[in-house]
Amino acid sequence: MKIQSVKGTRDFYPEAMRLRNWIVDAWRRVSLRNGFEEYDAPIFEYLDLFTIKSGDEIAEQLFGFTDRGGRQLAIRPEITPSLARMVNAKINSLRRPMKWFSVPRLCRAENPQKGRLREFFQWNIDIVGSDDVLADAECILVCVDFLREVGLTSRDVQVRIGSRPLTVAKLVSIGVAPDDIDTLLPVLDKRPKVSDEEFDKLCRAAGLNDAQAREVRRFGDLSNREVIDELRSLDGVQKEVDDLEKLWGYLEAMGAAEFCRVDMRIVRGLAYYTGIVYEVFDASQSLRAIAGGGRYDNLLEVLGGPKLGATGFGMGDVVLGILLAEKNRVPDLTQSLDFFVIDDGENSILPTLKLVAALREGGWSADYSFKRQKTPKQLKEALNRGAAVAIFVQEEPESFSPEGIVLRIKNLRNEQQYPTRLFPGEFLERPELKNVKNIDQFLDRLGLAGR
Amino acid sequence: MKIQSVKGTRDFYPEAMRLRNWIVDAWRRVSLRNGFEEYDAPIFEYLDLFTIKSGDEIAEQLFGFTDRGGRQLAIRPEITPSLARMVNAKINSLRRPMKWFSVPRLCRAENPQKGRLREFFQWNIDIVGSDDVLADAECILVCVDFLREVGLTSRDVQVRIGSRPLTVAKLVSIGVAPDDIDTLLPVLDKRPKVSDEEFDKLCRAAGLNDAQAREVRRFGDLSNREVIDELRSLDGVQKEVDDLEKLWGYLEAMGAAEFCRVDMRIVRGLAYYTGIVYEVFDASQSLRAIAGGGRYDNLLEVLGGPKLGATGFGMGDVVLGILLAEKNRVPDLTQSLDFFVIDDGENSILPTLKLVAALREGGWSADYSFKRQKTPKQLKEALNRGAAVAIFVQEEPESFSPEGIVLRIKNLRNEQQYPTRLFPGEFLERPELKNVKNIDQFLDRLGLAGR
Repeated sequence: MKIQSVKGTRDFYPEAMRLRNWIVDAWRRVSLRNGFEEYDAPIFEYLDLFTIKSGDEIAEQLFGFTDRGGRQLAIRPEITPSLARMVNAKINSLRRPMKWFSVPRLCRAENPQKGRLREFFQWNIDIVGSDDVLADAECILVCVDFLREVGLTSRDVQVRIGSRPLTVAKLVSIGVAPDDIDTLLPVLDKRPKVSDEEFDKLCRAAGLNDAQAREVRRFGDLSNREVIDELRSLDGVQKEVDDLEKLWGYLEAMGAAEFCRVDMRIVRGLAYYTGIVYEVFDASQSLRAIAGGGRYDNLLEVLGGPKLGATGFGMGDVVLGILLAEKNRVPDLTQSLDFFVIDDGENSILPTLKLVAALREGGWSADYSFKRQKTPKQLKEALNRGAAVAIFVQEEPESFSPEGIVLRIKNLRNEQQYPTRLFPGEFLERPELKNVKNIDQFLDRLGLAGR
Repeated sequence: MKIQSVKGTRDFYPEAMRLRNWIVDAWRRVSLRNGFEEYDAPIFEYLDLFTIKSGDEIAEQLFGFTDRGGRQLAIRPEITPSLARMVNAKINSLRRPMKWFSVPRLCRAENPQKGRLREFFQWNIDIVGSDDVLADAECILVCVDFLREVGLTSRDVQVRIGSRPLTVAKLVSIGVAPDDIDTLLPVLDKRPKVSDEEFDKLCRAAGLNDAQAREVRRFGDLSNREVIDELRSLDGVQKEVDDLEKLWGYLEAMGAAEFCRVDMRIVRGLAYYTGIVYEVFDASQSLRAIAGGGRYDNLLEVLGGPKLGATGFGMGDVVLGILLAEKNRVPDLTQSLDFFVIDDGENSILPTLKLVAALREGGWSADYSFKRQKTPKQLKEALNRGAAVAIFVQEEPESFSPEGIVLRIKNLRNEQQYPTRLFPGEFLERPELKNVKNIDQFLDRLGLAGR
């Protein structure tokens, strides 16, 4: 009986897996060099952990189940609640601030569509235990460091940075009724995709008069220091404006500002975030957000812990993968091997096995053919497998070679062959091959590296 | 409200995560150098995929759930059914034999106990599309290569190799009734843990007479070539004996035999395996099996594909982790950083941020303190974070340094300080620091590597 995979999930065949690993390895490498430590949590938690953070509506987006003890569990749709749970559980023994990252597998019971699947991987960067806006700057820098690492430029992507308290203060200052604010915030988000007229219309539908609508549009279109300067005139948000200005200064000092834009239309989810928020978009905004995050100073307290400053972001692999493919930034990821050992002349397979095992134990990637077939076919397999070097195992009278075996070595990239035959016993012990770190160096030492 | 984690799951705080990564990295490294390619499948599949392979009883061990469309799904308790599904789905385009590995997260609804959790990671090595016993030898070699890689020796662990068809043929040859065989096979497994008398008693309880019980015990205690020689006298299993003999010869040639023992008491699960099977145990057999596998030539066909030879094994992280800890084979895995940049003298933080960002972009791991605190406290943080090198950022008149900043460099392991002050602009551009690959080389080039 033939069974299919479930809609909205992915099978990672080796080629797709190499791409996933390329992305995940870059996430890890960038996290570590930015001083973050990796953590992970279980793939399932008590359902309550997720509904306390996000409300009962989240239950609809969860894959929930009941264990044999009747307990309500769910596969994680995000890892931040688990992070908060873990920090709360060891609050007194963890050194603060914690700079933690994770690359969890997450599942959401959504209808699959472009850029949105039911199972995906998400890079999470979080700093817990610092109220300083330095921590927010640090998270944005890590994000930019990664974007650069995979070859994306400030022409490809933009980090749009807002602050919900500041946007709300601005709206209040122009007389928007408190009741209208929740309706209006999602409208701001649509600004980059609609004309002036359409935007004004949406604002009016949210309860604004003409003058207010124009002012919201004008203010929303400002960026960077323009916005910050204008925000200075607002009452009661001195600290928030100072923080935003500091943030911008830090991003400039760290060379990350070219990727960023202060943009008060970015407000993200309502309940969760408490300060600076940001989203990463492709420049044309034809795709969903690549990443999103911000400061969430209340979450640990909501989950039974102390009030503790926290900030961070998540970046999924799905939209990112689409963008990298569109921009042609994925390198050649075919399989490769250092050595392919060829049993040249249908001898006993044993010397081949012995050599293959010795190469592997020495840290080299090495393989051979299971099929006892003629040399040209084995050579073809070597090329198919991306082997850099072929070693031909040939029988010789023991009068000539101690083990009755000689080896011939060939660089498969340039067809150059080592002029003399080598004996297996001494091959890997040669002085010129000591401390060789990779196959290019190996070929170089043997004089086979030339074009 | 405080929520706990679910019993039988693990929180991977950074220290635990480093251990998990150390194991997983070794699994990956060894797999790749043995010529295997990585794949992965979704964390959940249709429930049928698992019950078709393992029968309805498996449903009890599964975390099953129903999606909004009413479809019966389950979190994977193993990855082999997904592997078979994936291979069947692309059977005509995949190059055979496939040498594939995976490191899936798996979940089983079991009662947690020592060495058995509800969520764990399992290394899977599989070769699909080869009937040759070379493929079985290859899998066992990979296993041994890994055991050696993490510092385990043949005194710590043993790969016990059996063959269900051969064990059954032997039992039939001494007159065990076919009906008694299924009862007797699990008894064989207990042999290493019971006395001669107890073993004979268990055999008699399974329907054997005294002479048969003694013969089963004698035969079961044989190993390696002794067993193979004796098996030669059995009828109708010529190919199986030849394969076992070849396997042993291959393992000897590959230098893996010292870890292995041919042991006809190893039979594993009944329905799944079709030929050679093996289990890896710690030498004292005080723990559960570390790994287990064998040939399963029928699975692809059962799941709607062609009949195709397949062989492989799984190794979980839980028992392995216990053994490595018991044997003290886990290296020091504390956090480390290349550089910690210290804002020496309560200057502006901006030059520190600039330097940190430049170091990270250059591939170095670098950090600094969010807390604006005195130099000794920042230095303490540097040591706590495992930094190799401290860079002190000091203000100087611009008449002295172009950017108004000088840097002092100190090796924190030996307290050696670089004699002159450096300018940030030229620091990373110095000729002696070009092409430096790691922090030891960096210290060496600056003459700071001495004890």
